[in-house]
This record gives sequence, C-alpha cells and structure tokens, in this order.
Amino acid sequence: MIKGDITAPKGFYTSSVHANIRKNPNQLDLALIFSKVPAVSVGVFTQNKVKAAPVMLTQKNIEKGLLQAIVVNSGNANACTGLTGMLHATQMIQSVAKELNCDPDHVAVASTGVIGVPLPIDNIKNGIKAAAQKIEANENHAALAIMTTDTFAKSISVEILLDNVAVKIGAIAKGSGMIHPNMATMLAFITSDIAITQNALQQALNVANQSSFNMISVDGDTSTNDMVLMMANGLAANNPILSADDPRWSIFTEALTFICKELAKQIAKDGEGASKFIEVHVKGALNETEAQLAARSICSSPLVKAAFYGADANWGRIACAIGSSGAEFNLNQICIEIAGITCFANGEPIPMDENHAKKALLQDNIFIQVDLGKGTQSATAWGCDLTPQYISINSNYRS
Amino acid sequence: MIKGDITAPKGFYTSSVHANIRKNPNQLDLALIFSKVPAVSVGVFTQNKVKAAPVMLTQKNIEKGLLQAIVVNSGNANACTGLTGMLHATQMIQSVAKELNCDPDHVAVASTGVIGVPLPIDNIKNGIKAAAQKIEANENHAALAIMTTDTFAKSISVEILLDNVAVKIGAIAKGSGMIHPNMATMLAFITSDIAITQNALQQALNVANQSSFNMISVDGDTSTNDMVLMMANGLAANNPILSADDPRWSIFTEALTFICKELAKQIAKDGEGASKFIEVHVKGALNETEAQLAARSICSSPLVKAAFYGADANWGRIACAIGSSGAEFNLNQICIEIAGITCFANGEPIPMDENHAKKALLQDNIFIQVDLGKGTQSATAWGCDLTPQYISINSNYRS
Repeated sequence: MIKGDITAPKGFYTSSVHANIRKNPNQLDLALIFSKVPAVSVGVFTQNKVKAAPVMLTQKNIEKGLLQAIVVNSGNANACTGLTGMLHATQMIQSVAKELNCDPDHVAVASTGVIGVPLPIDNIKNGIKAAAQKIEANENHAALAIMTTDTFAKSISVEILLDNVAVKIGAIAKGSGMIHPNMATMLAFITSDIAITQNALQQALNVANQSSFNMISVDGDTSTNDMVLMMANGLAANNPILSADDPRWSIFTEALTFICKELAKQIAKDGEGASKFIEVHVKGALNETEAQLAARSICSSPLVKAAFYGADANWGRIACAIGSSGAEFNLNQICIEIAGITCFANGEPIPMDENHAKKALLQDNIFIQVDLGKGTQSATAWGCDLTPQYISINSNYRS
Repeated sequence: MIKGDITAPKGFYTSSVHANIRKNPNQLDLALIFSKVPAVSVGVFTQNKVKAAPVMLTQKNIEKGLLQAIVVNSGNANACTGLTGMLHATQMIQSVAKELNCDPDHVAVASTGVIGVPLPIDNIKNGIKAAAQKIEANENHAALAIMTTDTFAKSISVEILLDNVAVKIGAIAKGSGMIHPNMATMLAFITSDIAITQNALQQALNVANQSSFNMISVDGDTSTNDMVLMMANGLAANNPILSADDPRWSIFTEALTFICKELAKQIAKDGEGASKFIEVHVKGALNETEAQLAARSICSSPLVKAAFYGADANWGRIACAIGSSGAEFNLNQICIEIAGITCFANGEPIPMDENHAKKALLQDNIFIQVDLGKGTQSATAWGCDLTPQYISINSNYRS
C-alpha cells in the first residue's frame, strides 16, 4: 500500500470543483480524472434495466477501448430524464473533450444522486471548464467530489513489482445507499500505469469485482447508475501483459482484487445510517457461488441487520436467511458463529451467555462465520446494520 | 361477507388460552381449531429450506388428506430446535389428539415467534388441556391468540351459494415481520363447510394464494414457519365438488381468493412498524408473472418504502425497482402514477406540484399504478412503509 489515490499511478491527474449542482456551496460536486495519454479502459456496469444516460454513453465509449478522461458529478443521477438526459450527458462529454483537448470517444461520464431531475447543464459546463483549467495542479479531491450521502471519502492505492518494474494502482469509490450485489449506486474509478491489453484488463476487473463490489449489500436496491471504470495508461513501461495466461496477470489481479475489496469494505462500513460493519464468512459450501449466495443473503436480511443494530445475537434470523438463500446445506452440520460465539451446531441451539453476547455485539465490527457443512468452498460478504438513520436519510432524500 | 371468522362455517370450534409461553399474562398464546368431523385439508408452506419442526410434521399429516384439529402457539417458532423441537411438536400433536379424542394423524401443529429457543412444553401441554376442556364454548379468540407483533387481529368470513346450498368460508391470519412473497412468518387458517375433494381444494388454495399471500412483502425476509392451512368438513352438505372442472369450483375459488386477498391486505397494513399501507398495481405486462415481479419489486424496495414513510414522491426509486425486477418493459412507454399523480410518461419525467404530491402522500393508504407499456397483463401487490418503528421492534425482538 502506498500514499495517494487515483493520482498515484504515473500520468493521472484529477481536479474537482463545486459546480452548483448540490446546494451546499462547500460541497465539491464535479470531478475530472485525466490521463496524460489515452488509457486502455474497461468497466462493469449496473445490471438494472433502467440505465441512466451516462451509463449508456460510457458503455459505448468503453467498447471502443480507450479513455483519456472521466467526468463525474454528484447530486444528480441523470437517470429517467429522457432525451434531455441523453443530450446533457453528450454535452458533458463534448465539453470535457473540448476543455481537455481530447477525443470525445475517449471521455467517460458518470453521475450519481437523485433520479428523474434534469441536470443543471449550464452549471455543469461551467464547472467542467473551471476544473479543466486547474487540472495540472492535480489537487487530490476527486474522492470527496463524488460523495452523496457518504460520510467519508474512499480511496486506496498500492504498488506492485512486475519483473522489477514498479506498477501502481489507485482507486476511489462512493457508496452508500442502493447498494446491493451486482452493482448499486456505487461508483468506483481505478487507475493504473500498467501496460496491459483491454481483454486482459477486463478479465482482471471481472475477477476483482466478483469478490468485492458484488459482495456488499446496504439495502438490497440495485441502482440505475453504477459503474466501476478502470483506466490503464501503460506509463509504468512494463512489458505489456497480453493475456490472463501471463503469470504477471495473476499478481496484478490479486492486487486489483485487494484494492476492490478494501473499497467495498469501506462502502459497506459507510452504508447509509450504518452504526456497525458486518462481515459474513461462509465456508463448507458445495461451490463458491453457493457460498456467495448464503453470505449475501445473511448480509442483506433486514431482520439480521436490525438485530445487530440492537446488539441482539438473534442467530435464528441467520439460519432463516441461509434457508432462503438458495444455497445447499446440511442443517445437522451447519455451524453458526457470531463474534466468535457458537450459537448453533449439530442441528441444535447452543446455550450462550447473553451478557457476553451482548457485549461482543456492542463492538463496531461484527464477524459472522457460517459453516454450511456441505463442501469445501467459501466466500465473504460485507454489509452494515439497519438503523433508524437509514430511514431518516431516505425518507426525504429529494428535499 | 358475514359475521364471524373460522367458526362461521358449520361444525368448527375454537378455543384459546394463555399458556404461559409469552410473558404478558393477558396475552392469549395458544389456540385450538377443531372440526366436529375430520375435514379434507390442504396447505401451502414456507419455501425456506430451514423449516420449523411444526411445518415438517404438519406437511406429513396434510399429505394423508384429513385434519380434525389444529394447535397453534405464538411466542415461540420451534424452529432450529433440533431433535428436541421435533419431539415437542410431536408431543403437541399427541396431546391434542388425546384431549380432543381424535386421530394424531388428523392434527396439525403451527408455531410462530422467536427462532432457536426450546418450547416450554409443559406449559403448552397444560394449555392444550385447558383449551380442549372449553372447546364447546366456542369462544372466538383464535385470531388474537396467534398474533406476535401484530397490532390487530385478522379475520374474515363469507357465504356463497352453490346450487342454492349455502357454503361458508372463514379465515384468520397473523403477520407481521419476515413477510415476503412465497410465505413469510405468516400463518393463516381457513375453514369451510364445503364438500370438496382434496385435489380440488388444493388447486383452489394454490390459485387464491398466488394472488394474495404471495403478493405481500413487509421486509423481504422469508420465514421458517409459514403455513396456510385449509380445512373443508363437508357439513354444508352440498353435492361434493370433485374437480376444478366443476363450474362451482370457480365460484368457490373466487370467494376463497377474495378472502385470502383481504387477509393479505390486512397483514400488509399491519406490517411491523407500518404507518402506511401501499398498494401497487402493475399493468401492461407481457404476462402475469412479469406483472407480479414488477409489483413485488416495488413493494419490497426499502428505498421506495422509506420514501413513502417520508411522504416523498420519489418516483425514481419506483423506476429503479422496476428496472431490477426482471420484468420486461418499454422505458419510453412506462407510465408511473403515485396517488393519482403521473410522475413519468413517454420516457420523460412529468413536472409535478410538490405540495400537492406531499399532501396526497400524507394519507394512510397509497396507491401506485405502473404501466409497463409492453403487453396486457396485470397484477397487484401490497406492502407498507419502512419506519423507525420497524427497526425498534426488530432490534430487541428476543428480549
């Protein structure tokens, strides 16, 4: 791990401004991410059939293979905004291309915030201009500018050695509601100076994504705007990685997975209204998919989440969530542990010291371990508790 | 509609007691339902793979075709209780058979409450004895005795004429957390004096269940204990209905569906912590299954539910829930109406008077209508808002 975020890899710049999209004038709400040279780029996108205009346009540009700039705004999702929304997203791309002097095909656009409200496009164009003008100052605030209800900025960077060439990967992300497996209102932007083909990069991102961003749940809602974009500009000057068969691909993918998992955990920890971070490890599954199903089902259960808010070791709800997850298990061999306390094993409840359990569950981080008693595969999912603050945040989000 | 509940049809009796399962001595917690003669009986059961002991035993007895008595306790689910749990459920059946002088194969058992705690079986046996002794008094309190966090008792009964023979159907149910399509911690008991074969009765219940209990969601959790049991004792002395081809089957099924829908709506209205009742009607679907998918997805979204708690017409979250439901739609022809206000049509948001919308959403009952713009089929789902009370109820449920 090294200091810095998406500007840690060679040749990446960011710039952020308050573009008057969000009401609070101290809140940055527009960020530019820029690579000195066009970068091989890939992405994973929301699986919601209602896709926001920026998602549709960015998917198109990603298919062409290269990105040099990304523009992101918070405060407005530009989703369900019809033709106007498509026009606005196109204008954002054109404006960035003009101000940063790059090909519009090399620009991605991402938006997050309220659904169904037209963007204040003039403010955004002015914001893009202002941000572009100071791009070389490379102020490091993009992680702040993409936040919505997030309470802290999420970033990480690492350095790895590939055949003695230092390669860096940096990333930022935002959560924090509509978070559910298969992408939610989450955005993540990852940069690297690695030289790699688009195909090998996409495979690496898919692997990393599956065990990180796809394993968090805040509320079970899948948003219209999610994306994880990754740019690799080759400035590390390593011998290019041409395919996933290259042994260096595995090293790189491992580092990328580490980065994505760390960001995913930060997102879960900062789930809307969360007071506790929950990690669920499921082992003893027939295969990894079933382990993931069970782990995510536990993490997504409102009843499990509400119980942890109340520091109540209500393990029966965990058993219930396993039962409805679709995963195969052997009830007589299932073992459920909450914060190190075994609650259920050999098909029978294990009497527990309630005071001890209560104390363990008053911690900020809760670790749940489940053995399905059926096989050898495992998976981990992350989430948070369900609190009255979640409801208070989401009952007047538009105002 | 007629007065009374499950005792309205001929030959059915109920009796309820406080059996010292729940702490509050004024809270009835054990009910017996008894038919003068063994009744053709059918059921639908939770699809959770973790099934409580009473569910497993009742499924077995239902397969044999007849029931004469049902014993139900609240306050303890007898789920995840291992061999002890199976033993206790068996003892409940035996105790009822002895006290009411019927065949143990003709007794069903149902439990609802906390998971993973052994039943106070001696209290329950005493309760069964006390309840059996006053069964002929036919006190009508079973709907109260099966409640857990329910705030009101749920019952209904109707009378229909089949070839000039009066046939009655009565029903009681309980909600109110772990409520989700495909059965949740909900129990419903339906009686009728109709003469009908088991096969025709099962088909009728399946039809009724699909558009009623399977269309409600309180929190997306599927419980370990759900069941809907129906007894038909034939005392109405109609010419027996032998199959679903009999034209009277349709009349009966329509009445049964009406009953189940009314109970389902009562359960949704009384969802844990609910302050508002939400009805979602989806039309314009390719087929009924897709209409149901979309309607249930909207009803189940925590973000939609939290917005309605706050009387916020955040229709974008409805669009989002449709998009992730799996249903096919045409975004340019979708129409979203909240409380009669069109929010989205022709692929564009429709500007609305926010004060008017706020006022409409301050009502207790909210009607959402969505046209998917893709076909001619429709479905309705019911749910409730997500409130801080839901969390408060569920954060210390065991204590």
